[in-house]
Amino acid sequence: MYGRYTQDLGTFAKDEAARLRLQEGDTPQPRRPSELLEYTQGRCGPCRVCALQCQRFLIAKVGEDWVFLILLGLVMALVSWAMDFAIATCLQAQKWMYGGLDTNVLLQYMAWVTYPTVLITFSAGFTQILAPQAVGSGIPEMKTILRGVVLKEYLTLKTFVAKVIGLTCALGSGMPLGKEGPFVHIASMCAALLSRFLSLFGGFYENEARNIEMLAAACAVGVGCCFAAPIGGVLFSIEVTSTFFAVRNYWRGFFAATFSAFIFRVLAVWNKDEETITALFKTRFRLDFPFDLQELPAFAVIGIASGFGGALFVYLNRKIVQFMRRQKAINRFLMKKRLLFPALVTLIISTLTFPPGFGQFMAGQLTQKDTLVTLFDNQTWAKQGINDEFEYLGILEAWLHPRSNVFITLVVFILMKFWMSALATTIPVPCGAFMPVFVIGAAFGRLVGESMAAWFPDGIHTDSNIYRIVPGGYAVVGAAALSGAVTHTVSTAVIVFELTGQISHILPVMIAVILANAVAQSLQPSLYDSIIRIKKLPYLPELGWGHHEKYNVRVEDIMVRDIRYVTLNCKYRDLQQVLHSTKMKNLPLVESAESMILLGSIERAQVGALLSTQLSPQRRLLTLRQKVLPEDGHRLSDSSIRFQISTETSSGAPARAALRKPLKPALKRVPSSPADSPPAGSTDHTGIALKSLFCANAATEPTEVRACVRRMGGPLLALVGRLYPLLCPMAPPQILDWEEQQLDQLVDFSSAKIDPAPFQLVEHTSLHKTHTIFSLLGLDHAFVTSIGRLVGMVSLKELRKAIEGSLTGKGVKVRPPLASFRDSTASSSEADTTALRQLWDRHQHHHMPREAGPGGDEDDDTPK
Amino acid sequence: MYGRYTQDLGTFAKDEAARLRLQEGDTPQPRRPSELLEYTQGRCGPCRVCALQCQRFLIAKVGEDWVFLILLGLVMALVSWAMDFAIATCLQAQKWMYGGLDTNVLLQYMAWVTYPTVLITFSAGFTQILAPQAVGSGIPEMKTILRGVVLKEYLTLKTFVAKVIGLTCALGSGMPLGKEGPFVHIASMCAALLSRFLSLFGGFYENEARNIEMLAAACAVGVGCCFAAPIGGVLFSIEVTSTFFAVRNYWRGFFAATFSAFIFRVLAVWNKDEETITALFKTRFRLDFPFDLQELPAFAVIGIASGFGGALFVYLNRKIVQFMRRQKAINRFLMKKRLLFPALVTLIISTLTFPPGFGQFMAGQLTQKDTLVTLFDNQTWAKQGINDEFEYLGILEAWLHPRSNVFITLVVFILMKFWMSALATTIPVPCGAFMPVFVIGAAFGRLVGESMAAWFPDGIHTDSNIYRIVPGGYAVVGAAALSGAVTHTVSTAVIVFELTGQISHILPVMIAVILANAVAQSLQPSLYDSIIRIKKLPYLPELGWGHHEKYNVRVEDIMVRDIRYVTLNCKYRDLQQVLHSTKMKNLPLVESAESMILLGSIERAQVGALLSTQLSPQRRLLTLRQKVLPEDGHRLSDSSIRFQISTETSSGAPARAALRKPLKPALKRVPSSPADSPPAGSTDHTGIALKSLFCANAATEPTEVRACVRRMGGPLLALVGRLYPLLCPMAPPQILDWEEQQLDQLVDFSSAKIDPAPFQLVEHTSLHKTHTIFSLLGLDHAFVTSIGRLVGMVSLKELRKAIEGSLTGKGVKVRPPLASFRDSTASSSEADTTALRQLWDRHQHHHMPREAGPGGDEDDDTPK
Repeated sequence: MYGRYTQDLGTFAKDEAARLRLQEGDTPQPRRPSELLEYTQGRCGPCRVCALQCQRFLIAKVGEDWVFLILLGLVMALVSWAMDFAIATCLQAQKWMYGGLDTNVLLQYMAWVTYPTVLITFSAGFTQILAPQAVGSGIPEMKTILRGVVLKEYLTLKTFVAKVIGLTCALGSGMPLGKEGPFVHIASMCAALLSRFLSLFGGFYENEARNIEMLAAACAVGVGCCFAAPIGGVLFSIEVTSTFFAVRNYWRGFFAATFSAFIFRVLAVWNKDEETITALFKTRFRLDFPFDLQELPAFAVIGIASGFGGALFVYLNRKIVQFMRRQKAINRFLMKKRLLFPALVTLIISTLTFPPGFGQFMAGQLTQKDTLVTLFDNQTWAKQGINDEFEYLGILEAWLHPRSNVFITLVVFILMKFWMSALATTIPVPCGAFMPVFVIGAAFGRLVGESMAAWFPDGIHTDSNIYRIVPGGYAVVGAAALSGAVTHTVSTAVIVFELTGQISHILPVMIAVILANAVAQSLQPSLYDSIIRIKKLPYLPELGWGHHEKYNVRVEDIMVRDIRYVTLNCKYRDLQQVLHSTKMKNLPLVESAESMILLGSIERAQVGALLSTQLSPQRRLLTLRQKVLPEDGHRLSDSSIRFQISTETSSGAPARAALRKPLKPALKRVPSSPADSPPAGSTDHTGIALKSLFCANAATEPTEVRACVRRMGGPLLALVGRLYPLLCPMAPPQILDWEEQQLDQLVDFSSAKIDPAPFQLVEHTSLHKTHTIFSLLGLDHAFVTSIGRLVGMVSLKELRKAIEGSLTGKGVKVRPPLASFRDSTASSSEADTTALRQLWDRHQHHHMPREAGPGGDEDDDTPK
Repeated sequence: MYGRYTQDLGTFAKDEAARLRLQEGDTPQPRRPSELLEYTQGRCGPCRVCALQCQRFLIAKVGEDWVFLILLGLVMALVSWAMDFAIATCLQAQKWMYGGLDTNVLLQYMAWVTYPTVLITFSAGFTQILAPQAVGSGIPEMKTILRGVVLKEYLTLKTFVAKVIGLTCALGSGMPLGKEGPFVHIASMCAALLSRFLSLFGGFYENEARNIEMLAAACAVGVGCCFAAPIGGVLFSIEVTSTFFAVRNYWRGFFAATFSAFIFRVLAVWNKDEETITALFKTRFRLDFPFDLQELPAFAVIGIASGFGGALFVYLNRKIVQFMRRQKAINRFLMKKRLLFPALVTLIISTLTFPPGFGQFMAGQLTQKDTLVTLFDNQTWAKQGINDEFEYLGILEAWLHPRSNVFITLVVFILMKFWMSALATTIPVPCGAFMPVFVIGAAFGRLVGESMAAWFPDGIHTDSNIYRIVPGGYAVVGAAALSGAVTHTVSTAVIVFELTGQISHILPVMIAVILANAVAQSLQPSLYDSIIRIKKLPYLPELGWGHHEKYNVRVEDIMVRDIRYVTLNCKYRDLQQVLHSTKMKNLPLVESAESMILLGSIERAQVGALLSTQLSPQRRLLTLRQKVLPEDGHRLSDSSIRFQISTETSSGAPARAALRKPLKPALKRVPSSPADSPPAGSTDHTGIALKSLFCANAATEPTEVRACVRRMGGPLLALVGRLYPLLCPMAPPQILDWEEQQLDQLVDFSSAKIDPAPFQLVEHTSLHKTHTIFSLLGLDHAFVTSIGRLVGMVSLKELRKAIEGSLTGKGVKVRPPLASFRDSTASSSEADTTALRQLWDRHQHHHMPREAGPGGDEDDDTPK
């Protein structure tokens, strides 16, 4: 009992606080200046006033979107740059350590292996302890959040810290991990924190719709400041996180991502890394003749092969996760020693890349960034054997092996990195898979390019001019194609242009990316969707490429017809039955079982609360009491309102609450009182009711209330209330009897929270349209109605089943194409008119009560 | 009775037809081969079977999206290339004519002026005669079409032909007109025609949702193949035409646009215009140091100035149109001589650009394409005076004037072209404004760039290396910024990269475009929105940049509360009253005036039809007849089915209609008939029913029907029916009496077409969310309900008013920012519970008929 009443007080206090804030919100300016002026009176007063006006102006401006976006861009650019700096330092430290110990191979090996293992283990442990939500990419989670699902603890400061530090360590280890996915998450957290911070200045940031818009912009910022690719960032984030994109958010993403990318690159200039603002992985391919038309088949081959490769990567990644989960022995062992798996994986991978060991066959000493720079290199490596004019200078040396040629090195690199990346991305640290895949793709492209260059040493062009083949261009194409295939996006093409600073290969890149997407999408879900499935996040699969059946499956084919519902004139017993027979989270509220007119939907919890209020011991005791003192309730009811207030204002002792409830039902059937009888379950409602009660009275007659409190001696009455149940108990059989009796009463819905306009569909809506509406509005379920009558329900589950069923060609009955012929004609209008006629007939009966009788509605009251 | 049975038979026939077609759809293969095999028996049979299988495979594949998209891309690329070729030929012809007459300036002038005037006049006349819908850009119309509005004749073959030929002539004239906007329209028409053509092979192309998706892809193709800019095309078309973009359409646009751009450029290679596939306006800026950080302020200045310039352009364009419309004298004169205005405008513009005349100060002899090529030139013009190393070669000569310097030429060019373009785009020919604006922007950028180059002749960079300023880069930035400002898009940046083939200036371009957008959007609507407003197309304005009030205005603030409605148990008199008192196109159908439970919505036309059926002379005559022959109707009903057919097949005399209708009401109250009594107004339904009736019967039992007709002697019966009203007329007072009597009858809704699930909103929905939902679902109106009860209505009109009101800060009561705090708490739940309580109380009364009486519902039946 204490607990419950404490809760009541809690909501009251919250409401009161909110009320105060509201008052403050209405008039924040008049107060602060006067306050401040008081103690600065006389001295530089005008100065202060001026400063205050500036401050006020700033506060007003803080509400603007662009201030938020600039701040977000700035913060994220700083974070990105600082992280890059830290990662570079970490990698340099490893190189330095490895280089310094070149006298002893064993020591070298120890240093090479221990360093990443320690970093990864620390990263895994740190995130595990601080915020396990920081693990992984974050894009799948952002996708679900942007769909309207609330994931707990995903956008908090703790997760932010865990993700930033964990990611820095993970990337600093030199493992094949990416920065992009986590950056989307980091930017979103940053936006959420920033909007919470800015909401201190004004109320604009409290709106949920606005927050979603800002999160969408933040995703763009995340990609944008990670690659200094504003356009690609916006497009990639749209493709990866949204199903439907509001074009009015477009400028937000562009603005923030551009600003962020700008600051990110300016920091590099400021740090003397670059002379001016240029692309991250600048290429220098020739502009006048970037590629020959006859090279296009080779680019198409890269695209198709990348499609298969991407699908294989997603499959491999999922299988590894599933294998780890399924093997119970391994699983149990790993659960105990959570840090063993990351350490083990790191150990294996770093052992294999050890440069004096196997690493020499796969350019093991190169970092991810160096690898990309070398792969996008302008020169042709393969020709080296022929006319020796080309030398492997600087970091390019890594690809040169005295006992093998560059083709073998590339093949080994691709094969090894492929499974390594798929394995490494399953480590429970903050990490993405975009960059490793990008590197593999680049290597594959390079391989094809080098092969082409070796095949056509003087280029393909038949004219007099000799245009040699540029393998670097192939690498660019391959990178875009493979990353596009893994993520199922086309915008990797744009990212590639922005990363390399050259757009001359636009057509090959687009062709390869589209082909890769076509192949990969028909084989596997995207990496992010795959993770969503593994993590069982609430999602809705996309409609695939050109599945026409979707236009011919209708809601009536997939909806659940046999649903439980609550009628307006049902009894508590019916509620109990409904609760026992279904697990639906939202129950439809219909007018009556006969008419089935949908009035709204009521949450399961609300129904439970209604039921528990009806059968609560408090009510039972009240009944008992009313028997003893049949007039007591009514006598007390007049004074109870004021008494109520008195206890609220005078003291916070929980004892008085016992008095408050028992008196309530006496007032329950008075319809004119605006805020009567709150149920025990819906605590927030009670708070509100009390609040409005309090406010109204306090406003009209505050002095009277206080006087009344003093007169009544609240605590004394409370004591009486608490002792009462102890004095007159009820026997168990009596209780059962009483409960049975209570269950037969009609339900009073006035206190329940009802969604007055649940989303409705018609039976003939196509699956395609239903999917659109569900993903547009972020629905969880929708009721199917026909002229106001409830006929069924569709939830995400049914929809998912239907889509996946039709994707695999089974599960759902697929209508023949021409069935849509009937869409707006015969069959539909037939069903409609029948339904309408029934309704109409019922109304006819209404007007002739002799035939049907007024009690006719009651027959079918019990829910099916 | 005839009428009813016709309809019954009609639906039966329709179902039958559908069933037959379904059967056909299920098993199309077994029939066709056998048919064909019959007459090819013996001879090369296996060959035929093989060919048939191929054909079947092709037909199956034709339904795939990608086939459609490839075809679309191919056709559009061909159209684009052919048109470019024709335009180039036209322009060359003009140049040749002008060049050939260089002996006589007057003749030269005549040739220079007459040629474009004739072309423009022909273009205006041709489109006017063939399809006036082809006039103008087409993007505003596509925007409305993609919002779900059906614009008549906009996607027909006639319009296609008119637009293609009209556009070619208009652009061939050398006027400052663009190709982009019309190309969006042309591609959409092409898609619509193609999908109609392909639907001959299968039923997939009949779906409306799919067509909209294809149209969206077509818009991307339009831009893509116009500029060979697939990515920019997709993004631009999204920004310009959509409010909400379905990401699943993304690949369609990319695929089709890429293919189209590819073919477009391959055609250029094939035609030996280019050596390989490159950008349309290729630039050769240096890659290593594209621009200095300290140049950024200059780029920002370009952006801001372009913003103002863009807004001015839109304003000027609108003012010209409005001026032409407002001046009645001009208007009347122009309406008579429709071709005078285009001719006059062309005359003025071409006179001013005449190269030996004023044109010498504004590079008048350059075509749009040449102008762009020169403006994007890599060299610096202004330095010419200093060290003379640079010579104006080839077309660059046009910018050189012996008596003035390049700055003056550029300023004159910008000023003249500005008003010329604004004026020229109001000519009623197919034309866009993108390209002219793009050129002006490039010139403005060049001007700033040349100024910068003159100011810092040795570049700004403080290090040892000298990097000179590249004015061509400024031109690129200016072009993107001004075109972005006019169209309110950010994707012009991407278009610019794809057009020039260089992405090195990405940050300056992005900064300038965003600033230009920020300025322009706060001053004026986009050019397309401006045209939408001028043309009064049904549209919904965008929510502006960061207007927070939108989150605080709610539906209850803007909805129409005093709406007319139809109750289920109303009388025909009420329908009449409703029709007289409102002009709403959709009337809500509620259960009763007391409960106000929304059941559906009914179209105004349907209500009218119901009313006119009830008061039709046919029914009046029937009543009369029933008095005379009370049993006649029932006797006739048995044979009427065949009789009906007989009249349809034998003759088309209108007399039979009189026979068909009168018998209906006798059967009106039979509740089990599924589809009875069609209203007189819905003629198309009857038509369809009759047609399918005829077809179905002809297919199933043609001989029997013919026989039956002969047996029955249809014409005789028809004659009887026709003579009947003449024999027994009704006096006018009798008619009035009869009508009054009829109006008091209860309405029978069973024949009306009712939308069973109109879209519903709740009172507390914010304006922001309402806007989202309206634009997402393309709604026209929505009912506002509260627990099933109708409380108001919001239509596009109210929404538009509210948005525009809050944009200008008046009209709508704006809530204080913190009002959203109440969103899900006190006030809302209070109102809800009160409403629920009313409903509940009503039900309580239901169960205690002694208190309220069963007739209680009838009191408030008449609509308010």
